[in-house]
Order: sequence, then structure tokens, then C-alpha cells
Amino acid sequence: MRRSTAVLQSVRKEVPRGLPRAKEILAEILHSVKSDAPIPFTPRDAERALAALLATEEMWEAIRLSRVPMRFLCAFWSRLQEKGLLTVRGSRLFLTEAGRELASHLGVAPAWDGSCSLCEGRGVDPSRLSEEVVERFREVSRSRPEALQVYDQGYVTEETTLARVAFAMARGDLVGKEVIVIGDDDLVSVAAALTGAPSRVLAVDIDDRLIRFIREVAHAEGLTMLEASRYDIRDPLPPEWQGRFDTFLCDPTESFSGFRAFLTRGLLALRGVGSAGYFGLTHAESSLEKWAQIQRFLLESGAVITDVREDFNSYVTWGYVETMRAWSWLPARVPPDRPWYFSSLYRIELLRPPSVENQCLEGNIFEDEEAATT
Amino acid sequence: MRRSTAVLQSVRKEVPRGLPRAKEILAEILHSVKSDAPIPFTPRDAERALAALLATEEMWEAIRLSRVPMRFLCAFWSRLQEKGLLTVRGSRLFLTEAGRELASHLGVAPAWDGSCSLCEGRGVDPSRLSEEVVERFREVSRSRPEALQVYDQGYVTEETTLARVAFAMARGDLVGKEVIVIGDDDLVSVAAALTGAPSRVLAVDIDDRLIRFIREVAHAEGLTMLEASRYDIRDPLPPEWQGRFDTFLCDPTESFSGFRAFLTRGLLALRGVGSAGYFGLTHAESSLEKWAQIQRFLLESGAVITDVREDFNSYVTWGYVETMRAWSWLPARVPPDRPWYFSSLYRIELLRPPSVENQCLEGNIFEDEEAATT
Repeated sequence: MRRSTAVLQSVRKEVPRGLPRAKEILAEILHSVKSDAPIPFTPRDAERALAALLATEEMWEAIRLSRVPMRFLCAFWSRLQEKGLLTVRGSRLFLTEAGRELASHLGVAPAWDGSCSLCEGRGVDPSRLSEEVVERFREVSRSRPEALQVYDQGYVTEETTLARVAFAMARGDLVGKEVIVIGDDDLVSVAAALTGAPSRVLAVDIDDRLIRFIREVAHAEGLTMLEASRYDIRDPLPPEWQGRFDTFLCDPTESFSGFRAFLTRGLLALRGVGSAGYFGLTHAESSLEKWAQIQRFLLESGAVITDVREDFNSYVTWGYVETMRAWSWLPARVPPDRPWYFSSLYRIELLRPPSVENQCLEGNIFEDEEAATT
Repeated sequence: MRRSTAVLQSVRKEVPRGLPRAKEILAEILHSVKSDAPIPFTPRDAERALAALLATEEMWEAIRLSRVPMRFLCAFWSRLQEKGLLTVRGSRLFLTEAGRELASHLGVAPAWDGSCSLCEGRGVDPSRLSEEVVERFREVSRSRPEALQVYDQGYVTEETTLARVAFAMARGDLVGKEVIVIGDDDLVSVAAALTGAPSRVLAVDIDDRLIRFIREVAHAEGLTMLEASRYDIRDPLPPEWQGRFDTFLCDPTESFSGFRAFLTRGLLALRGVGSAGYFGLTHAESSLEKWAQIQRFLLESGAVITDVREDFNSYVTWGYVETMRAWSWLPARVPPDRPWYFSSLYRIELLRPPSVENQCLEGNIFEDEEAATT
């Protein structure tokens, strides 16, 4: 999506800024979106959604480029349709002339992608790991268990898992370290173990299929430092895992309570000051308000945020896309034909022993108003 | 610095972990470092410093790879020397056999660089801007004013400035936007204006040379949306700049009070909810404790952190390196022959009107115990 200066200049010149009527229309739309989508959003989210519609007609690409909660996005699209600002044909979304005019009056320009084409914006190059690691991981991944909705699974591309391992290695969180992976449908434990770097890798998951699979791989590949155990995130972290690891990695469910549960167990598993944690966080299921809530939780728990890398994690579309919660919200119920669900990679580091409690959690901790894929 | 799995495996195997004597020696060293470097640091910082020494003998490269405050690093090196664990020859630092043994017993492995070679780890590719923008910026930069110590200046590489502009453009913070650059020895205002994207770019700086230079460039290049004004960060932000901008960019001095001053003025310049800010933060002059303090300040002020990209900003070594505060701490007073000073790029977004005060600041707000380059 390379655009020349000339294009950008012409975009800017077409835009008579701050027309009060356009702002009024947008305010009306956002007011009515509030009743369909009782979650925090801002006019800037609407701007991002319009910028995406100016850049692509493909619905799933528009979801990716919007970088806003799907709950908001689908309600917003629906109001645009009602007002004759957006039309839907097949899986394609078109701003009408009136829609384009609104975007133009609001000063919205097409979303622009400046990502590095070699690393896809991740900043790390997994091919810096040895070829053997990369090949063996790809081979192992071929027979992985499929993602299950009951466990809110949805795994990342092989490229993502390898990049995550390269990233953790570059931060000094793998070589000679004891590593716990909490929920591992991404097979991070396998990729980490294949590098030969960690002294111990423990994968814990609720899914028996994954436990069996990881144990089989450990046996077949001779990865003696790789173990797998069954664990339900709602249970307190067992004493034998508390304070025993240098690094945790996880990819939590995105309800705030579910997210906090994963991070709490992760923090409790860490040895202490200087230990590190990794996790993914999306825009599709988490408003920036929830991002701030999570950031406050981390700081209050004794951690500092050292890295936040947008779109680092790219997910392989799971088989149950048609039964996910957001399916019914979509203007076109057409399965995705490309990666569309991305998350930011966070790294944190402990500055003091974590101040969190190892409680038993009851009930459905996996859903909130912003959740879309559960 | 590509390392094969075999190398990593051999590193791991040489490491008999957790030898209590090595931990004791490190604890003794860190205890005595405390008196020389009264700033927060952790054993993990010592580990990073040792990992760097295992990866390079070049002092300036070791500073870069250590990613810890120079105040700590130099005091740590000095104690290693006293204990016969480190020797210095010219600008080269060598761990002695005893030093290597200590690192090995502590389980420390050489620092490993997994950065993408195309984007140097930034994740954005400035060549996605038009060639004309890139060329004109390089041309303009040739006659830039040199960095002055009195203003704590030190500008980034042209590649960095262009990448920063590409990054802000990809986040939707430039096209059609009003942008303020607070302190602009990096010439971000010029690069942003050259894209033709923003509707207004105001550069404010204390340095009359920069004001003149940016005005001259605006005139010569026909950049009518580019302005420059003199401003001292200690003064309250003038009313005519308050709440008037969509985006601020700055690269603050790193004392906490100085940092807070830059961020406060930036937040006050923003229009409100959904407006964005950018700034750089180093490890060389800021402990992770200070990072956490800054993150808490941002969240309390009504912002959320959306991006933290390590080593995004690469600085051109300034002419006054031999009179900077850290010079006297160095084990070898040899000027750098390569980029060594890097910072992480932060992006924040406002979730509510900023809760900060527009106070007049008195006295020396530019230094704290961790400051190294002032």
C-alpha cells in the first residue's frame, strides 16, 4: 500500500477540516452505537474504522486495519449502513459517496501500512535462529492438534512462534533459563526447547491433546528439558511451580478477569526481581481502556513494561470462526481468506516480588462485553 | 552475531547453574556498587552487563548491549576490575578467566541480537515514504546545526527520523493532523512536513539556531504548514498552543523531573481524547524503576501506552561526548567509533482530558542521579 507524497498531499487538500456538520453526524452515530456496544470507545476509534474502509474493501482486512474492538466496529458499520454511508456486497464493504464525504470532512485519510516487509513489522528475524530449529519446528507443527473453541484456542503462525522465541532469546530470557508456557496451543514450548537454549521448559495447558502432543514431541525429538502438565488457569498455581521460573510466556483469553488470571499465575511462577513475562493483547477484543486497566494492574503488581510490539502475533484462522461470538455481529458472514486477527506482544520485567494473590477462581472468567472470539 | 543452536547448546552445557559461591560474589560486588551508583538496579542488570561482555570486547558496543544505566554499568565494571574479573586494554574490555567463570557459574550467556537486518529492528521501513521525501530530508540534514551540550542535545540518525515519521504515519497520527514537535534537534518537524501529510507542523525549541534553521528550510522548500517558535520547557505552555494539536513528538531529557516536564507540556498541547504522543526513553540514563515511574505518571495523567519499541532511536554521537557527565565514569576514555546510544520509542494515546498542571518550573530540572549525558 505504498503511497507517494503526491497522493498524500492530494488526500490532505480534499479535506476541508472540522466541518461542524460532519462532527455532528459522527456524534449521533456514536451515540446510537453505545446502545449496541456497551464498551468503552472514542471518536478516534471511529476515525480508525473509517481510515480502514478508505484503504480496503475486504471486510477481514478492514477488521485488521481498524485496530478497534470488533464489538464496536460491527455496531459502527451497522449504523453506517442504516444511514446509507456504507454498502455491503458479498464480503466487501464500500463507503458510499456520502460515506466518503463524511470521512473527508472529518479529515480522515486512508490507513497506511509502513511495516518492514522482511520481518512483517516484528523487528526480529527468526531466520537468525539456526535453520535446523526452524525446519524441525515446521515439521513438528504439521501434526499439531486443531484449535478448540471450548478452550478459546487459536494459534499463531509458525513464523510468529519462531519470532517470539527469537525475541525472548534476544532479551536474554531463554538461554540457560527455566521457562514456563501457560497455555500452549502456539507450541512456544516446543520451539523454545528446539533451540536447545533453556535449561527447562514446562508447558501447562488444560487441553489433554496438547499435553500428549508436547510429550510425544519431547520424546521423539529427544528434548529432555521439555515437560508438559495439565493445568486449569482457574486453579491456584501449584506450590511446586511457584517462584521457580525465570520467564513465563502466555497468550491469555481477553476478558479482563481471564487476562488477570493468566498474568497472576505467570507472575507467581516467576523467581523474582529481574524475571520476565510475555503475553499478547489485541485491539479486536480489548478497548484501549482495557489496555490501560491491564497496564495499571501490571505496574501495581510490581512489573514494568519493557516492550509493546503491535501486530507481532499473527493468528491462523481457527476452524470455529462461524460459531464465535462476533460471527453474528458481522455485516457479511463470509469466512476469512487471510490472517485478520493480530495481537501486540508485551514483555514485562519484575521490579519486586509480585503482589498478587493465588486465588481459586469460580464461574465464567472468560467473557466480558468486549470478548469476540469465545 | 548469528549463533547456531550448537553454539547455544554448548554455552548451556558449560554452565553448572546456581553455584552459591558465584551468587555470593555477585551480591558482594553489587553491594559495593551501591555506594558508587546510588540509583535503582537489580541483579538482572548485572546479568545483562555480563552478557554484553561475553558478546563483545568493544566498550561502546558493550554499553549498547548492556541496556542498563551507565551510572550502574561503569561502577559495576570498576568493581569487576578491582576484583581481577575484568581487564581494560585501550577501548577494549576483557573478562578474565575468573570473570568468565563467574559469568558461567551464574548461568549468563552471551547477548544475542535477533534484529531484522532490513529495518534494524524498528519494524517500519522508511523507504515506504516516497523517494523524494527521503532524498530531500537527507539533503536538508546536511546543513543542520551541531548538537549543543548546554541544551542536552543529541540528534538521531536520518534513518531514525524518517522511520519515526513513517511510524507515526502508519498509526494515523500525521495525515491531515496538527502536529507539535517539542524540542526538535532531530528535525522531525522537517521530515513530517516534507511528506506533505500534516495540515500543520509546529516545532518549538529553546535553541535559536534550530528555530532559524527550520524557518529557513520551510521557506526554501515551500513548506507553508511548517512553523518554528522559541520555547523553554520550564515555562508554562502558552495558551495559544494548549489543546490545539492532534499529535506531539519529543525526545526528552531523562531526569525524571525533566521527562515529566516534556510529557506534561506535550499532553497539554493535545486536543483531547484520541490524540497521540511520541517520545524516546533510554536504558543508558533511566533505570527500569524510572521507566515504571514514567509509566505510572502516564496512566495517572489519562494516557494509555500503545507501543514501546526498543532501540528504535539510534543517535549520532554528539561532539561533546568528552565533557558529558558519564565520561569520567568510563574505564577507557576513548570516543565512540559507532552508534552506542539508543532509545525506545513510546507511543501513547489520551483516554480522557489530561490531568496535569501547567506549572512554571524552577531550578535544574535536567539532572538526576541516573543522568549521564548532560
